[in-house]
Amino acid sequence: MSSTQGDALLAAVESGVRVVDLGRQLRVGMPQSPNHPAFSHALPRRHGDMRRADGGSAANDLVSMGTHVGTHIDALAHVSHDGKMHGGIDADDAGRGGKYDLLGVHTIEPMVRRAVLLDIPAFLGTSRCEGGYEITPDDLEGAAKAHDVSVRPGDVVLVRSGWGQLFDEGAAFMGHDTGVPGVGEDGAEWLAAQGAHTVGADTIAFERLARGAGHSLLPAHRVLLVEHGIYIVETLDLEGLAAVGRHQFTLVLSPLNIYGATGSPVRPLAVVPA
Amino acid sequence: MSSTQGDALLAAVESGVRVVDLGRQLRVGMPQSPNHPAFSHALPRRHGDMRRADGGSAANDLVSMGTHVGTHIDALAHVSHDGKMHGGIDADDAGRGGKYDLLGVHTIEPMVRRAVLLDIPAFLGTSRCEGGYEITPDDLEGAAKAHDVSVRPGDVVLVRSGWGQLFDEGAAFMGHDTGVPGVGEDGAEWLAAQGAHTVGADTIAFERLARGAGHSLLPAHRVLLVEHGIYIVETLDLEGLAAVGRHQFTLVLSPLNIYGATGSPVRPLAVVPA
Amino acid sequence: MSSTQGDALLAAVESGVRVVDLGRQLRVGMPQSPNHPAFSHALPRRHGDMRRADGGSAANDLVSMGTHVGTHIDALAHVSHDGKMHGGIDADDAGRGGKYDLLGVHTIEPMVRRAVLLDIPAFLGTSRCEGGYEITPDDLEGAAKAHDVSVRPGDVVLVRSGWGQLFDEGAAFMGHDTGVPGVGEDGAEWLAAQGAHTVGADTIAFERLARGAGHSLLPAHRVLLVEHGIYIVETLDLEGLAAVGRHQFTLVLSPLNIYGATGSPVRPLAVVPA
Amino acid sequence: MSSTQGDALLAAVESGVRVVDLGRQLRVGMPQSPNHPAFSHALPRRHGDMRRADGGSAANDLVSMGTHVGTHIDALAHVSHDGKMHGGIDADDAGRGGKYDLLGVHTIEPMVRRAVLLDIPAFLGTSRCEGGYEITPDDLEGAAKAHDVSVRPGDVVLVRSGWGQLFDEGAAFMGHDTGVPGVGEDGAEWLAAQGAHTVGADTIAFERLARGAGHSLLPAHRVLLVEHGIYIVETLDLEGLAAVGRHQFTLVLSPLNIYGATGSPVRPLAVVPA
Repeated sequence: MSSTQGDALLAAVESGVRVVDLGRQLRVGMPQSPNHPAFSHALPRRHGDMRRADGGSAANDLVSMGTHVGTHIDALAHVSHDGKMHGGIDADDAGRGGKYDLLGVHTIEPMVRRAVLLDIPAFLGTSRCEGGYEITPDDLEGAAKAHDVSVRPGDVVLVRSGWGQLFDEGAAFMGHDTGVPGVGEDGAEWLAAQGAHTVGADTIAFERLARGAGHSLLPAHRVLLVEHGIYIVETLDLEGLAAVGRHQFTLVLSPLNIYGATGSPVRPLAVVPA
Repeated sequence: MSSTQGDALLAAVESGVRVVDLGRQLRVGMPQSPNHPAFSHALPRRHGDMRRADGGSAANDLVSMGTHVGTHIDALAHVSHDGKMHGGIDADDAGRGGKYDLLGVHTIEPMVRRAVLLDIPAFLGTSRCEGGYEITPDDLEGAAKAHDVSVRPGDVVLVRSGWGQLFDEGAAFMGHDTGVPGVGEDGAEWLAAQGAHTVGADTIAFERLARGAGHSLLPAHRVLLVEHGIYIVETLDLEGLAAVGRHQFTLVLSPLNIYGATGSPVRPLAVVPA
Repeated sequence: MSSTQGDALLAAVESGVRVVDLGRQLRVGMPQSPNHPAFSHALPRRHGDMRRADGGSAANDLVSMGTHVGTHIDALAHVSHDGKMHGGIDADDAGRGGKYDLLGVHTIEPMVRRAVLLDIPAFLGTSRCEGGYEITPDDLEGAAKAHDVSVRPGDVVLVRSGWGQLFDEGAAFMGHDTGVPGVGEDGAEWLAAQGAHTVGADTIAFERLARGAGHSLLPAHRVLLVEHGIYIVETLDLEGLAAVGRHQFTLVLSPLNIYGATGSPVRPLAVVPA
Repeated sequence: MSSTQGDALLAAVESGVRVVDLGRQLRVGMPQSPNHPAFSHALPRRHGDMRRADGGSAANDLVSMGTHVGTHIDALAHVSHDGKMHGGIDADDAGRGGKYDLLGVHTIEPMVRRAVLLDIPAFLGTSRCEGGYEITPDDLEGAAKAHDVSVRPGDVVLVRSGWGQLFDEGAAFMGHDTGVPGVGEDGAEWLAAQGAHTVGADTIAFERLARGAGHSLLPAHRVLLVEHGIYIVETLDLEGLAAVGRHQFTLVLSPLNIYGATGSPVRPLAVVPA
């Protein structure tokens, strides 16, 4: 009978791995950006509604939502600047037909990649960054050094601010009255310079948001999505991963293959030795 | 700087892996079971609809759908028999509150597991099984032997019928006039006896469907979901995987964590050596 | 105390009127055009899911649908021809922003108007027009004469084909294999020449549809919506009204005031003497 | 040719009526109860996305929403008390099947009825009632006397608080920080004692809501829907009607005929002499 047939990955899996779930649960009423249709869910059929002659019964669901809800990935089609999407594609033309054929979420290859966690509050010696705090290149570089990891081209870079601790509080996580910590324009340039394939954070918009300013200015989105073609993952749960204490690991991220959409809810996994 | 720090999985990933996408694209009009709300997608905002003062613009989505659409996983809460779900849980009570707290899709742990592909038409020496063909224990066992793999407890078992070749034809894939090949009650018992953790197929309902009978009798669902607590993945794309010629491999499957839902669209990945 | 204070309408209502419902019931699975998102409905909360401390409980709904479902009205924004909407408005420009500000359904004034019923099968001496039958100006004019009514400027004109008898059969009502009877280009010109404000029919698309041709050519939509600014109501139930035997009456039609939409489900009422 | 053939209603319509729209526009982001799925709307197809060979193009919509959004009517199935709906119907049993077959919104007969407007701030000599103000039987009776109208059995009774002036302000209309004026338990009893068929108000919940209390206690819903079988219409626009100065008139209200739903968005019309 078969062994793992020279499959080092499978051998590693069989020897035991730990899967750390980086996704938030999708629940009606969870915090989400008001710019996107709210997540709704209902059961059209429950058990007991109808039973087949053989005793069987099936329950099912109706879901309505934007794609930028819960933990989600932004496709390159999500953002344009001065009428252009990444690669100089005309943003108006690209949307004709009602689907972003060129840079929609269906064009994101599923990821099985090296990832690094840059744990900013651990580096700064705090439990979490304050509302409105801008994570700088020095913070990113300092955290990498403190963790003894380097960001390499093709990596997924997860930036923890600790703000995800507030997710269950709803309004506090949205940070309207406090601002939200995040990577600013300079930090985004630094991430691009390292060759990041995808970046992510534990906040609603990845960006540093000033108090009361809402989502009116999103420079990191421009730098990352438009100028460098780097995907952004938002509303990650990085608390469990931070507790594990590994700063480089395998990340698996498989967006829903929605033809022409600008994003997708995702449930990324960090896979570390058991 | 850091190496992979004793992370055999990451070392395997860095030495090169091939990711085979087992998910179908979610498109308006794709074939799906009429028992579930249809997949709809639209862009509420396109680039050009509104541009911020700084030149930035964001496009977004509105999605409405059942959860048993496209490639998807059935949670244990999906099916009951004689008023009971898996583990003898009262099916009526379980749905109270409008969420299946006990056996909803949020209770499925994300999977990084050994999987085997049982390629039935390859074993039978045909290009695909015929409509209404029942895949028997002998077929499953014979395919495993021909592939030189065994199903072990905890595995994900993917059963290819070849019917997925018809997906793009829509009505033919649904098989109303022809029936659909699939695992029957005996095959489901065999899969359960091997200790499968999850099973999947390249058809709309996993089951063998007789011509004209629709989804009126679903014995494999009863055996797998209700009696044995084994998850079912439907509408997989197994054509590319079959062409790879590997019959055991690492499978990653990360359902959307929808609290209380009976299933979720998924995009499973087979990860094989490059 | 007060009388009707010179309100002749209220006096008429108080003396007794009969309300004839011209709308179809919105049910999951009802026949609707495949060009539009399907009607879905579920109860997120049912009684028994949660009870407040005072014993109260509320159940509610989640609906997902296109607007051209069930009995519905087409706004002028629904159709363009050669890039222009009614009044020569540039159709591309009009949709910018994701709402049809200029000719959306929110621009239709609620209607309390004289309406006439042109009962074509009654005029032709048959129970219903055959699939693919084109209702001509002679039919329309002949029916009006037979009913001793005339169409006046500002009227709502309801054209009965009898095809609505098939609504509950679903596929037969859609008429894919038979075609559907309806007003053709000449009939639409005739209706416009009479000064109709709104027209309606008991079929899926108002138009005469040829067998197997689907909705590929819709000349009456062009004539009515684009060239003349006349609203179209589809999938009416005219059977009950035909049985009443009144061919002129008060019609009330109050579309949902959905900002920027291309149509709305409606439930028009014919109000006749008791 | 024909006259109005003894149709006094049609004669009144032809002599000229004024239609006063009592419905709010359905817009993304409008104020609505957080207990219900939010109103979403998008255009899956816009003109320019696709043009048929003949030059024609059609745009369409995708809507997702609860039914208690915008101006809407509560069906009797919406509320139960101590496990019973109106008429002593067991509320749990009634929802089995996922549709409220017995008291769903499809059971509300379309209305062409006498209505009265009780303009409370006009009676009280203020521009609008304050947040949290409870409208008492004395207020209702006093307003009727001041208007020289009486409520008769079968009437629709519209109670204006003036709070609708805040609709466009969103959060202020919801009244979380101020409370919302409305009819309390005693007022509801008074309305029931007059034999009202349906009642309505220009607020989010009809009820008097105390500051900060949300929708936790809804005694008028119990009295009206459960104990007396009286429908409730919420979020009406009564400002234009108040300006007309008529306190009795014909009201037309035609709910969407959604099988088994607990409510429906509506666009009621007051029809008064021109």
